[in-house]
Amino acid sequence: MLDPNQWFSEVVATDGSAFSLKMRARVHEEQTPYQRIEIYDTEGFGHLMVIDGCTMLSTRDNFLYHEMMSHPALFTHAAPRRVCIIGGGDCGTLREVLRHDGVESAVQIDIDERVTRLAERYFPELTEANADPRAQLLFEDGVRWIREAAPASLDLIIVDSTDPVGPAEGLFTRDFFADCERVLAPGGILIQQSESPLYHTQLLRDMHQALREGGFDTTQTLCFPQPIYPSGWWSATMAGKGVALDRFRLEDARAKPFATRYYNAEIHQGALAQPEFLRRALAATD
Amino acid sequence: MLDPNQWFSEVVATDGSAFSLKMRARVHEEQTPYQRIEIYDTEGFGHLMVIDGCTMLSTRDNFLYHEMMSHPALFTHAAPRRVCIIGGGDCGTLREVLRHDGVESAVQIDIDERVTRLAERYFPELTEANADPRAQLLFEDGVRWIREAAPASLDLIIVDSTDPVGPAEGLFTRDFFADCERVLAPGGILIQQSESPLYHTQLLRDMHQALREGGFDTTQTLCFPQPIYPSGWWSATMAGKGVALDRFRLEDARAKPFATRYYNAEIHQGALAQPEFLRRALAATD
Repeated sequence: MLDPNQWFSEVVATDGSAFSLKMRARVHEEQTPYQRIEIYDTEGFGHLMVIDGCTMLSTRDNFLYHEMMSHPALFTHAAPRRVCIIGGGDCGTLREVLRHDGVESAVQIDIDERVTRLAERYFPELTEANADPRAQLLFEDGVRWIREAAPASLDLIIVDSTDPVGPAEGLFTRDFFADCERVLAPGGILIQQSESPLYHTQLLRDMHQALREGGFDTTQTLCFPQPIYPSGWWSATMAGKGVALDRFRLEDARAKPFATRYYNAEIHQGALAQPEFLRRALAATD
Repeated sequence: MLDPNQWFSEVVATDGSAFSLKMRARVHEEQTPYQRIEIYDTEGFGHLMVIDGCTMLSTRDNFLYHEMMSHPALFTHAAPRRVCIIGGGDCGTLREVLRHDGVESAVQIDIDERVTRLAERYFPELTEANADPRAQLLFEDGVRWIREAAPASLDLIIVDSTDPVGPAEGLFTRDFFADCERVLAPGGILIQQSESPLYHTQLLRDMHQALREGGFDTTQTLCFPQPIYPSGWWSATMAGKGVALDRFRLEDARAKPFATRYYNAEIHQGALAQPEFLRRALAATD
């Protein structure tokens, strides 16, 4: 039915589901020192980047993810000036971060430069802010970079990573979270992609607990739709250093001087709502 | 890659995407006078009902849809007593409606009795309220039933239908909406499944306009996740007869005496938030 010559499919073996996009052509593939990257031209979703068999982003729906990985945390922090993005090589999160005038520096640290080079070619709209003088692109190990960063030197850390297997495994550990907590200034916030609320409830529980053990005193998961990711439903989890995460600069969000396609103040508030099953699952950890 | 002997796939040709569930077996199939119904036993989602090739419900994730088709409208109406469900033959919406003590009668009108008989066998948990003395199950044409119903005889109409093609086509028309408006008492609410916010934005625009033309003075779309439906993101649209739809009985929702798995007061509020792209698309019609 779904001819593998015409469809790219990502199978989630543990949940017995798959999502597929019809492709016109595979326009690029390479094995980098870190991972296998493929780019497809699809019929309905524009370009699709796939890393190690998992969908990373599409032209059509990446706005959901990139806006939710950036604006909620930026409008929750009182005055974010110094931002760091771990991963995020497609530069879509960086672009959203730089829409905030108060941001003075945004450093993106992806271990694999090829992701960025391919984004420049196949997702040029996401890289349009790369020349911003506030932006710095590094291609090295984000875990080590955080470990070596000066204490209290950042206001916001965004972990825009692949799934917690392979290169990104170290990003879901208590030790990494403890390093992040140390590097954040008081009032600082970490936000990290945290998989599907439906498929990965246990991972979310473990992550909240690891964030608390890493020294954060508040945690908060945001839910949002993401059609190309497993279950079509995704999450990001914030952790705060002396800052409430269920409130945000509402008036600033309402008056934001830039356009978005998904995010607005009401969407932000709505994303804070916890489905009953998730609220119960997380109640033991928070 | 996805062996059709092992996977059920629903293809959305217009968007070039597909969602698949791995099956253990097809446990039932039949052609009724109205449609083709299949039941699968899946690896990760329990039972799956498919009608005319489209996923209808799974054991695992139907709670999202059924809770959002019922509780938001019931907690928006001031005091819903008389409820009618058009479609909804699996009885999952009926079960949620009957959780509200104030409901005095709930009539479910599905054109195809076989849907209900198969739900009794393969989704027995959804039919557990069918013997409630307030419930009435009819198997006839819901459009005609509404056309012939007495004016102002209902407080809430829930249209829990298949996609707007085939048997359900007549449920997305101005004439049907005008009939609903007539049958609703002042303060009454119609809520209807309204497809994917991402894939069917134009349908949502048309539906808001048709609801207004049908005589409703307020309309409001709710968004929620639904992994097995196209794009994994779904919506229901409410229309009100002299009633604001962006407010609800907050204290009653917070104190609800029954358990839910997705719905709560914050989820309700969050579902009212309109993604920026949808807000802009609907701005011309509301």
